[in-house]
Amino acid sequence: MDKKVKVGIVGASGYSGEELVRLLLSHPHVELTAVTSRQYAGQTLAQVFPKFGHLPQSKQLRFTEPNSELLAKQAQLIFLALPHGVSAEYAVPLLQLGCQVIDLSADFRLKSAEIYKEFYAHDHPAPELLATSVYGLPEVYRSAIKKATLIASPGCYPTSVLLPTLPLLRAGIIKHTGIIADSMSGVSGAGRKAEVDYLFVECNESVRPYGIPKHRHLSEIEQELSVAASTPVVIQFTPHLIPINRGILTTLYLAPEKHFSTVAEAEELNRQITACYQAAYANEPFVRILEGKALPDTKNVTGTNVIEIAWRLDHRTGRLIVMSAEDNIVKGASGQAVQSMNIMCGFPETAGLL
Amino acid sequence: MDKKVKVGIVGASGYSGEELVRLLLSHPHVELTAVTSRQYAGQTLAQVFPKFGHLPQSKQLRFTEPNSELLAKQAQLIFLALPHGVSAEYAVPLLQLGCQVIDLSADFRLKSAEIYKEFYAHDHPAPELLATSVYGLPEVYRSAIKKATLIASPGCYPTSVLLPTLPLLRAGIIKHTGIIADSMSGVSGAGRKAEVDYLFVECNESVRPYGIPKHRHLSEIEQELSVAASTPVVIQFTPHLIPINRGILTTLYLAPEKHFSTVAEAEELNRQITACYQAAYANEPFVRILEGKALPDTKNVTGTNVIEIAWRLDHRTGRLIVMSAEDNIVKGASGQAVQSMNIMCGFPETAGLL
Amino acid sequence: MDKKVKVGIVGASGYSGEELVRLLLSHPHVELTAVTSRQYAGQTLAQVFPKFGHLPQSKQLRFTEPNSELLAKQAQLIFLALPHGVSAEYAVPLLQLGCQVIDLSADFRLKSAEIYKEFYAHDHPAPELLATSVYGLPEVYRSAIKKATLIASPGCYPTSVLLPTLPLLRAGIIKHTGIIADSMSGVSGAGRKAEVDYLFVECNESVRPYGIPKHRHLSEIEQELSVAASTPVVIQFTPHLIPINRGILTTLYLAPEKHFSTVAEAEELNRQITACYQAAYANEPFVRILEGKALPDTKNVTGTNVIEIAWRLDHRTGRLIVMSAEDNIVKGASGQAVQSMNIMCGFPETAGLL
Amino acid sequence: MDKKVKVGIVGASGYSGEELVRLLLSHPHVELTAVTSRQYAGQTLAQVFPKFGHLPQSKQLRFTEPNSELLAKQAQLIFLALPHGVSAEYAVPLLQLGCQVIDLSADFRLKSAEIYKEFYAHDHPAPELLATSVYGLPEVYRSAIKKATLIASPGCYPTSVLLPTLPLLRAGIIKHTGIIADSMSGVSGAGRKAEVDYLFVECNESVRPYGIPKHRHLSEIEQELSVAASTPVVIQFTPHLIPINRGILTTLYLAPEKHFSTVAEAEELNRQITACYQAAYANEPFVRILEGKALPDTKNVTGTNVIEIAWRLDHRTGRLIVMSAEDNIVKGASGQAVQSMNIMCGFPETAGLL
Repeated sequence: MDKKVKVGIVGASGYSGEELVRLLLSHPHVELTAVTSRQYAGQTLAQVFPKFGHLPQSKQLRFTEPNSELLAKQAQLIFLALPHGVSAEYAVPLLQLGCQVIDLSADFRLKSAEIYKEFYAHDHPAPELLATSVYGLPEVYRSAIKKATLIASPGCYPTSVLLPTLPLLRAGIIKHTGIIADSMSGVSGAGRKAEVDYLFVECNESVRPYGIPKHRHLSEIEQELSVAASTPVVIQFTPHLIPINRGILTTLYLAPEKHFSTVAEAEELNRQITACYQAAYANEPFVRILEGKALPDTKNVTGTNVIEIAWRLDHRTGRLIVMSAEDNIVKGASGQAVQSMNIMCGFPETAGLL
Repeated sequence: MDKKVKVGIVGASGYSGEELVRLLLSHPHVELTAVTSRQYAGQTLAQVFPKFGHLPQSKQLRFTEPNSELLAKQAQLIFLALPHGVSAEYAVPLLQLGCQVIDLSADFRLKSAEIYKEFYAHDHPAPELLATSVYGLPEVYRSAIKKATLIASPGCYPTSVLLPTLPLLRAGIIKHTGIIADSMSGVSGAGRKAEVDYLFVECNESVRPYGIPKHRHLSEIEQELSVAASTPVVIQFTPHLIPINRGILTTLYLAPEKHFSTVAEAEELNRQITACYQAAYANEPFVRILEGKALPDTKNVTGTNVIEIAWRLDHRTGRLIVMSAEDNIVKGASGQAVQSMNIMCGFPETAGLL
Repeated sequence: MDKKVKVGIVGASGYSGEELVRLLLSHPHVELTAVTSRQYAGQTLAQVFPKFGHLPQSKQLRFTEPNSELLAKQAQLIFLALPHGVSAEYAVPLLQLGCQVIDLSADFRLKSAEIYKEFYAHDHPAPELLATSVYGLPEVYRSAIKKATLIASPGCYPTSVLLPTLPLLRAGIIKHTGIIADSMSGVSGAGRKAEVDYLFVECNESVRPYGIPKHRHLSEIEQELSVAASTPVVIQFTPHLIPINRGILTTLYLAPEKHFSTVAEAEELNRQITACYQAAYANEPFVRILEGKALPDTKNVTGTNVIEIAWRLDHRTGRLIVMSAEDNIVKGASGQAVQSMNIMCGFPETAGLL
Repeated sequence: MDKKVKVGIVGASGYSGEELVRLLLSHPHVELTAVTSRQYAGQTLAQVFPKFGHLPQSKQLRFTEPNSELLAKQAQLIFLALPHGVSAEYAVPLLQLGCQVIDLSADFRLKSAEIYKEFYAHDHPAPELLATSVYGLPEVYRSAIKKATLIASPGCYPTSVLLPTLPLLRAGIIKHTGIIADSMSGVSGAGRKAEVDYLFVECNESVRPYGIPKHRHLSEIEQELSVAASTPVVIQFTPHLIPINRGILTTLYLAPEKHFSTVAEAEELNRQITACYQAAYANEPFVRILEGKALPDTKNVTGTNVIEIAWRLDHRTGRLIVMSAEDNIVKGASGQAVQSMNIMCGFPETAGLL
């Protein structure tokens, strides 16, 4: 590990790109050698993001126009922080040129080009890569990530839904039907786009649902739930926009397989859930199962790669309520992508993330 | 209507009390003659709330210690903006002294003293009044409100859940089982209490669930849903705290009685829902059924007595998603209480509320 | 006053235009007959602004393309809520067609076309109107407003600086040199423009100065201070952007003409200032001089046409600190424009504003 | 540096204490061995602050009642994050027991016990220590800090005022008279205290001045400015509270010694200021002098130990405007205290702070 791995970021001026810059500039085992941005080409990192100005590299590293051939010379591993549809344009040549690619867009998350078209409304730009891309959820696909050359880093909402749900589904503790995920996201989830809907005055003192009832992230959530349940899963997903910069809070409504009406039955079920999460996450550095009275709060994970999970059984309704909190830009995007990189490169998995 | 009705507010320095002051000072048919507050007794309205300083009455009207005998001389109708348990201490003597009482606490909302004790953890302070108190939801109980002497004004969450749900339940469009209400509330819902949990720094950039799974408002919601369904109803209710001053956004997950898998079936069901809401609310001045692509947004109702409602059918899951937005302090508390007063006193129902 | 005056708004979809709609829809003596917006032409008020949906007129009134000839038929008095430079294009023909015009832009505030060009970087579009336009600050120009046909409604920052300063300057209590105005504004001051700088994520958890040292509003502030001082006045003005929707807080650093080093001298000066403000504002419905320990707070004026003013003498430095708070969209824009309309039309000055 | 230095925090549950915990848990050269809190004694760090839960030490380290004798056994260096007046109660015995002490309160900042009493309204609790305590502003007192046993870490406002001002004053570029500092602070500056004034609803959508005209921090600011100017300095200081969690933006109004009316004179003065700041801060890791059009923004320094500084000359008024932005809890409190510790202990000055 003496020699640092050279990495680059395509689309480094959006919120996810900027967070990748932050994480990679302070990462002990990599050197950030390329950042691209059509808008800021020619300017240094320090000029575009004054907040990085006290880091020495920020005055030397300049944004360039994105160019796959050049990038392949500058870096061995490339992060793509681009809109869906555009990512594939870079992933294809970069892989051919021998780079490892971690894509933060939705382009390589779905295994079916047909479902991609259904949800993203255009033909998949590189369907031949879907068979080899690995869904970059380390808690689930760690061994595949280790050997991958193309990572499809999960979406922010899917991460907040999948990590609390998958172990329960695999263990047969909950039914695969009737799942509801109700989420609240900070405004950074909408990206750094100049649109009236995301102006301060339009978002402050406002809370609103959107993308109802068929948000794009459903496709990715259902794909992974179906794998865990070994049967097709269809869920209800409702995102809301709330006036915070960062964070997603997801509340899940789940149906336990076993009925519990007595105190003893509830305690037994609680023990099973505890054991299930322990088995899945006791050694996971970025999953925090809350104990006692604590409930997830986005402010406890802001700026970190941690997801908080807690649950409550409701004997009145027979339901299991599971709640999660994450930073949508870290565990929900750039932090998780760096976690995948650490695994691919053989670094300690928490390098640069604690 | 030449002579103004004299009204008083007990507990006028909390958020609901302050909003009652705002609404009543500009109400065309009432005169605010008494405001009480142990903390501010002796001070004028203008001294305690500089924002009312440009209204002439604010310099004359002084807070007093609460005293039922005195209040009964000063006013014919009294609003109680007090914590549960305390309200009854004033309601009982005020009614005996011939006043009309509109209580904003939970003390007279439940018809069962037993359920009250289950949810509020103390014996009901005046169970003899439960038979005659009227639940002050004008869209449902208008004729009873007209003749009532004691109004139990509904809670903020219950209003946001009941108005969208009751017509569907009464019409048999949805099942009375499996109802889920997921709500997000602004911080004013916690009251003007000096607690660390509600400090700016603790709430800003934070979203968190609380009161899971058995929030007190459940009792009131289930009571009214059961009346509408003519059978006991048990629901799931999950409140969340978000960093806005005012507003509640509730997302309801409902199961239509009829399955809808074809486009034609969905359209037919949509027509039924439209007709159901039209029948219930077309003439209601404060219920806004959204059309087209619009979805509820708390910022569209802040400061008003309006509740916004919209819905979507999800043919993938077979569910009906209904969403509502209200100002928790207006339609969810003080505005609705004034609406009840307008009905009781024979004023136009929108007086002072548009 | 039986017959309502017909009014129109050109540019009704920005923040000031929207606020004019709110104020005029509930104004007792006017009928809003025309609202224009290139972007929303053809749609009803209720469609564009759901929050007005419970007001009957909102479903009938449709946005139109702006057309002076048509407007002159639809309304007698027209508000222009347009960018500077554009306002004049409508003011000129509307005046010729016999309308009264209240312009919320900077186009007719400056008496000198040369200074206009210096600060706004283009030739004045209608210099011939500068002699007859009246600066719409009712507390100063009430009698001229009464007879005016063209009102130049003051800017938000200028209102917050001028109302606290002018009486002191006219009375010779403060020096006309060395004046510093340090202001903080909510984000609505930037307008409803899709620019990255005003996105929620860019403004939340941020405070920043801008437009230093020569903001455009300086020209207007200095013109009016110079009139009051009867000599050219040059001041320091520093605006800052803070994460609130509405409100301007201005802190003024002023030098009293008289030195005060003893307690008695300070008390005497305090009495003079009190008397000066009393003389100027005791009968002004929208100026609130704070007493005792109270200091201005934007939340006390949000949504109202009130400006709060307080002051402190600092015997350590010999300075007078005066602070003001206003709602930048109401007293700083649309509310003040309606106040001018009330004066022009002979309505009670507070009509529609309390 | 093989062996880690053991450190403790007295008062670890306030905002500054919590930030010290964050910084020290990830510091490469120290071991956090003691945290005290009367309120949370007996609980682990992870229980009180869930956000630290993914760090192994958080599950082992428990809050204790503060006890100087015990602390002196547990740690060599102690941070005091306590209210003024209380700090001295611990500083005195801890120093006698041989500990190094870094105090974040105001107790040892002022060299005069008399001025302390004037500003803090009680007798100084340990005046004998004032002669040896060192004001912990590393950019000014680095060599004294190196040898100190008692550090008085500067206040948040003073840091934001002094770092931009001292070099100009020492170089004779600005006059020592007429200085005005206008500051805006986030709400964390008020501490984690359960007071109504700092509730979310009271601070959100609000901006207000306070502590006018004689805030306690004036004493400390004027002491240090006087040292730099070699003559007593009296300034104007106006703090404002704005709805952000963290950050202070200070705008300074200064009078250059030299008049500048021509472009050439202004350019010459600009060169002098640039040179002055370069000489003072070119090698300082935590001072960022902004170039070009950039102006300070608190969001660029949140969570970091950096202070941003920019300036503008105004040829119209002859003034120099200097602006600074810092995180009030990091460079304004805990980060700066850690910076002092690094110097005292011979660690790299940026250890744990980048």
